[in-house]
Amino acid sequence: MAKRIAILGSTGSIGTSTIDVVRSLKKEFKVVGLGAGRRWKELAEQAKLVRPATVVIADPANADKIRPLLNNSTELLVGPEGLVELAGRKDSSFIVAAIVGAAGLESTVAAVRAGKQVGLANKEALVVAGSMIVPLSRKTGAQLLPIDSEHSAIFQSMQAGRTSEVCKIYLTASGGPFRTWTAKQMAKATLEDALRHPTWSMGPKITIDSATMMNKALEIIEAKGLFDVDVDSIEVVVHPESIIHSMVEFCDGSVIAQLGTPDMRTPIQYALTHPQRCVGCASRLDFSTVRRLNFEEPDFDRFPALRLGYEVARTGGSAGAVFNAANETAIKAFQAGSITFGRIVGLIEEVLGRHKVDPKPDLDALLEADRWARQEVAKCLKS
Amino acid sequence: MAKRIAILGSTGSIGTSTIDVVRSLKKEFKVVGLGAGRRWKELAEQAKLVRPATVVIADPANADKIRPLLNNSTELLVGPEGLVELAGRKDSSFIVAAIVGAAGLESTVAAVRAGKQVGLANKEALVVAGSMIVPLSRKTGAQLLPIDSEHSAIFQSMQAGRTSEVCKIYLTASGGPFRTWTAKQMAKATLEDALRHPTWSMGPKITIDSATMMNKALEIIEAKGLFDVDVDSIEVVVHPESIIHSMVEFCDGSVIAQLGTPDMRTPIQYALTHPQRCVGCASRLDFSTVRRLNFEEPDFDRFPALRLGYEVARTGGSAGAVFNAANETAIKAFQAGSITFGRIVGLIEEVLGRHKVDPKPDLDALLEADRWARQEVAKCLKS
Repeated sequence: MAKRIAILGSTGSIGTSTIDVVRSLKKEFKVVGLGAGRRWKELAEQAKLVRPATVVIADPANADKIRPLLNNSTELLVGPEGLVELAGRKDSSFIVAAIVGAAGLESTVAAVRAGKQVGLANKEALVVAGSMIVPLSRKTGAQLLPIDSEHSAIFQSMQAGRTSEVCKIYLTASGGPFRTWTAKQMAKATLEDALRHPTWSMGPKITIDSATMMNKALEIIEAKGLFDVDVDSIEVVVHPESIIHSMVEFCDGSVIAQLGTPDMRTPIQYALTHPQRCVGCASRLDFSTVRRLNFEEPDFDRFPALRLGYEVARTGGSAGAVFNAANETAIKAFQAGSITFGRIVGLIEEVLGRHKVDPKPDLDALLEADRWARQEVAKCLKS
Repeated sequence: MAKRIAILGSTGSIGTSTIDVVRSLKKEFKVVGLGAGRRWKELAEQAKLVRPATVVIADPANADKIRPLLNNSTELLVGPEGLVELAGRKDSSFIVAAIVGAAGLESTVAAVRAGKQVGLANKEALVVAGSMIVPLSRKTGAQLLPIDSEHSAIFQSMQAGRTSEVCKIYLTASGGPFRTWTAKQMAKATLEDALRHPTWSMGPKITIDSATMMNKALEIIEAKGLFDVDVDSIEVVVHPESIIHSMVEFCDGSVIAQLGTPDMRTPIQYALTHPQRCVGCASRLDFSTVRRLNFEEPDFDRFPALRLGYEVARTGGSAGAVFNAANETAIKAFQAGSITFGRIVGLIEEVLGRHKVDPKPDLDALLEADRWARQEVAKCLKS
């Protein structure tokens, strides 16, 4: 029988790639639900293509626009609570959690609570709420499957041994657009500079995260949640070509790596088909064109976000929620032109410094920490 | 209970490393048998160290020298037939087949016939007799475990998916000491030049094989036997640093690689402990010192052995026995100074061209093909 999946964040970059993958795998998967924020036109197009039972539009203002475009047999749910309902419904067993930022948190938690397989493209879920989601998944039997290319690479490499035999994780980083820039140049980088990613084509928030290396900081925290490893066993390696997506060192000294083109369809498909693999639509690595793979140690001075990432991963509790919310707010301020690029990480550090960590927060406490951090950033901006 | 192993070729480079590994793993393994060719002093030292029940000295001339050095409770077997007996005895379940060249063939076959786990460091066994050993192993339930670093890397990488999901094997090659030499320079290379391997420290025969790239040719044939893959799905990639030991591409496009230092203790240990991994004594890769990994396409003009390797792998049957025997004889002639380096592969090709392939040879037919090829090389040298 086909695996029944619902895609939360279907009109984004991961969502559309997921639809490509599911269509290429044909009989094995059936999309039964699609959920998006504002992009009602694209969402209606997707609904025409995959014919889901349920469609969710999170922005109520667009409900009347999409309704006439949907098939009679398709149910329309409206508002963020529609996403939560879709995530928890019994008619799907696999949820692709691809809503960027803390916005995707509640629906991801709903999927975990329902004990489903959850493909996590939304790395913020584990950053914000790892301290709550990971124990919850153990209780409900939910399986967390990484869709991030790095974490998929770690997960795939881990299949070559037992989890207890892993002694180190090498998280590779492209180094982003400012890998070779001086601190002085970086301080004055424009939005346009920050959006020019060397290897991956991604949404703007993630691309800016790559420029500050906040993405790697978030991934350190995510890796800790997903793989239950000691923070000190996670090592960031700068690898500008983004061909080795990450590596694992086993206790016997063997290092296993996953390599591929920078095509998100590979990790998406692996999350869907794990533990099996199928022929899919992702592009192939042509090894005759790979001439050289470079590696560098990360520069913690130019990229202080990395240091913060380790600290937050060690602290746990509500620290991740504050870290993530402060980052999201600072990025918006940078995009709006109210702060310089060089100010982003400093702002996050200031807010983190003022936060009183709750070691075992529930979802409400996490959402409150998120709100608090956003307000704190706003305060800093005014002062 | 400890796994009981016998090491055939215990005084060679793989044999001594195996003893290191077993000693570092302590309780999990017990060496119950040691077998070597001529080196009676080293063999006696090893026997003192690991206290095996049985010791074999293949060269009868040295039996009287080693006997007084052995413990009273240690049984001494003499002659090549002693190796065969040790390989087949019920008191061991794991045989490390580490006798270089066709000399190790009969004892390896005996281990396979006895349905044991066989760690294959002797790549010639599968090159010479793959067409017979592989079906035999299926019948007796013997498990063939690679000890070659490349094949161990392939085997380890294959653990990240199912065998049926593998679509390509990337066999990495250091390129040997003549990677950057012109054909003209190579033709005149001295024995000393050929013995100067850039990354691996190995015995002389294997090091010369690396200079002609016959080692890769043999490994193509070995990979076909071990992993039951189509010859055309095996691709040789020159990778001078020898850090990536080989790779596997799965049907979904993911490439999984095994990386490590050039330390044979890693593949030896993996063969012993598979499917588990243990902390051992092998040296670790320090990724902060890995700056750059290079890749090149192999040059089939300067290294015609590669082309021959593919041909022999496709042909199967007795071709591998002739290929290997002609190579061993040509190398001896080169070591003796009777032929130039540039003549080695040409000689092998001539002899192969005169061989009438037996598609389904038994062990006697293979040993006969081996003898025939050695005589043919000798004939070529006289004429």
